[in-house]
Amino acid sequence: MATRKEVAELAGVSEATVSRVFNDVGPLKEETKRKVLEAAQRLGYHPNAIAQSFALGRSGNIGVVLPHMPKVHLFSAYYFAEILSGIGEALREQGRDMLVLLRSPDETPDYAQLYHSRKVDACIVLGARDVPHQLEALRTLKAEGMPFCLVNQRYDGEGFSYVDADHVQGSYEATKHLIEQGYRRVGFMNGSPEYSNSRDRRQGYIKALTEAGLEAPEGGEFGGNYSRKSGYAASAHVWERRGALEAVVCANDRMALGLQQGLRERGWLAGRDIAIVGYDDSDAARLSDPPLTSVAVPFYEMGRKAALHLLDAAKRTGDAAAEPFAEVLLTKLVVRGSSRLM
Amino acid sequence: MATRKEVAELAGVSEATVSRVFNDVGPLKEETKRKVLEAAQRLGYHPNAIAQSFALGRSGNIGVVLPHMPKVHLFSAYYFAEILSGIGEALREQGRDMLVLLRSPDETPDYAQLYHSRKVDACIVLGARDVPHQLEALRTLKAEGMPFCLVNQRYDGEGFSYVDADHVQGSYEATKHLIEQGYRRVGFMNGSPEYSNSRDRRQGYIKALTEAGLEAPEGGEFGGNYSRKSGYAASAHVWERRGALEAVVCANDRMALGLQQGLRERGWLAGRDIAIVGYDDSDAARLSDPPLTSVAVPFYEMGRKAALHLLDAAKRTGDAAAEPFAEVLLTKLVVRGSSRLM
Repeated sequence: MATRKEVAELAGVSEATVSRVFNDVGPLKEETKRKVLEAAQRLGYHPNAIAQSFALGRSGNIGVVLPHMPKVHLFSAYYFAEILSGIGEALREQGRDMLVLLRSPDETPDYAQLYHSRKVDACIVLGARDVPHQLEALRTLKAEGMPFCLVNQRYDGEGFSYVDADHVQGSYEATKHLIEQGYRRVGFMNGSPEYSNSRDRRQGYIKALTEAGLEAPEGGEFGGNYSRKSGYAASAHVWERRGALEAVVCANDRMALGLQQGLRERGWLAGRDIAIVGYDDSDAARLSDPPLTSVAVPFYEMGRKAALHLLDAAKRTGDAAAEPFAEVLLTKLVVRGSSRLM
Repeated sequence: MATRKEVAELAGVSEATVSRVFNDVGPLKEETKRKVLEAAQRLGYHPNAIAQSFALGRSGNIGVVLPHMPKVHLFSAYYFAEILSGIGEALREQGRDMLVLLRSPDETPDYAQLYHSRKVDACIVLGARDVPHQLEALRTLKAEGMPFCLVNQRYDGEGFSYVDADHVQGSYEATKHLIEQGYRRVGFMNGSPEYSNSRDRRQGYIKALTEAGLEAPEGGEFGGNYSRKSGYAASAHVWERRGALEAVVCANDRMALGLQQGLRERGWLAGRDIAIVGYDDSDAARLSDPPLTSVAVPFYEMGRKAALHLLDAAKRTGDAAAEPFAEVLLTKLVVRGSSRLM
């Protein structure tokens, strides 16, 4: 479709004038009006793009569903910010816009209605949990042939499209790194098992222990909710087991940094008195003191790929458009001071 | 408008069933269908919300215009992330969705078209620069009575709605703090003067110097583009003037952290060999070594207020709806190790 700028250039007027002609905001010379309308017709310019796309069943918008949590500054979370940046870049390249849909994790999502009401052409679902109402909503979407893609989350056996990272590998390498440094009593702080990525991380942890002939120490597996606060709270648990735990793999950087802070307040330094590994390789990992060993996840690339896959699918028709896709990207261990052998 | 959930409850069926009835996805019992349709009629439920709002000229979406820069992970910038989180929270409360519009800062924005094509009901414009094509686009919006609001940016004398922070105050207090610590040769690293917030910060810096009977040292005012890289590059400039500069106020944390790093590589520590103050009070300020003195800006609250003002204006009619509003929030100096007297 032609742009307003092209019409303005062809008609030899400003873009504002083109707008005024189409919105009938006067006063305007008849001559100017005629020139603009002729240019628009020659170029096939339609200012009411959505009314047009509406007729075609296309809004031009890709929905991004995010779990809404009151008072949480969601966009400031490294994980979401990076995925959104990647999605935004891909959509921008293809002239699409991103409709951000904050939905409470406890309500049954009205995904299908978003399509039927033409608010979105396709959806990217972030932070989806493996709970019945969420699964049911996604199954409905799939049954109705609505294009959607999960990022950093899978539902095995459902045939949903997803772009994920290999969190088994990431957690395996993090744990193996600690074992290679000489640690034997390695604990694991996970997030909720409602996320497939939490379950994958645990699998990698157990795999590395098993390969080395080790077991999880007693009380060495504990949980949080991916917040810094929950990591901080867990420091009491780790402190009580200070004879039994030499190292902890955390399922994200926030929990690792909270744990690190809580232990420091008790006089225990990461990299000296205990080894700590985070996960995500957020900016905060680099900046903390000591810098946090972490697992880099290509979140930006994951968001980008999810958007590109969906846009690509939208160009196909019939069964080919609804064919699910899946892509799993590799993670990368980044070793820093928090996990070095003392 | 009634929700799908309410219809499901009244009809005694699941929400998925309500969807199936309205989307005609079979098989369904006639009895079930009848119950759902009756409940929907009683509650005034319309699944095709946008087709309905379209008729009213309401999309339910608030557009957020962001400056697109290739490869920049925009959502990962503290400043944008916080504003977006605040906007998202306010929209969520009122059942609206956020349409993210990444627009190149160099193209003439097609704001008006977004309204006419019913993609958005109102716009929040972030990162707007004081350049002719941007100003012209905003003037067109205003002339056409389209509701919009700027955040962290003003165009004096234009009568546009905005929510800003008092950056004169912020920069004034930052500079005054350094003078009170005993520093006399205080420099200033600013971002582009195309942003009103850059100009405001410079004004606060000059005001504090003038009040103390001081002047900007020669070569003490220099510029960057708000990136860490530009702060890092400026460290060469500061290093060359190390006799003439005792302290530097930076217009954001990223530049301050880049400068801090560049000087550290030359053996100069912030808080020991030079005093550095940042601006924004991002997470990185707290985590850097030494922690960075900075000016906290209530970005989240600014985003929230801009959205609430717009939604409020949308409820009024005629001239009252188009009446511009302006709100300026206070900033707060947070003193940390990077600026303490050695």
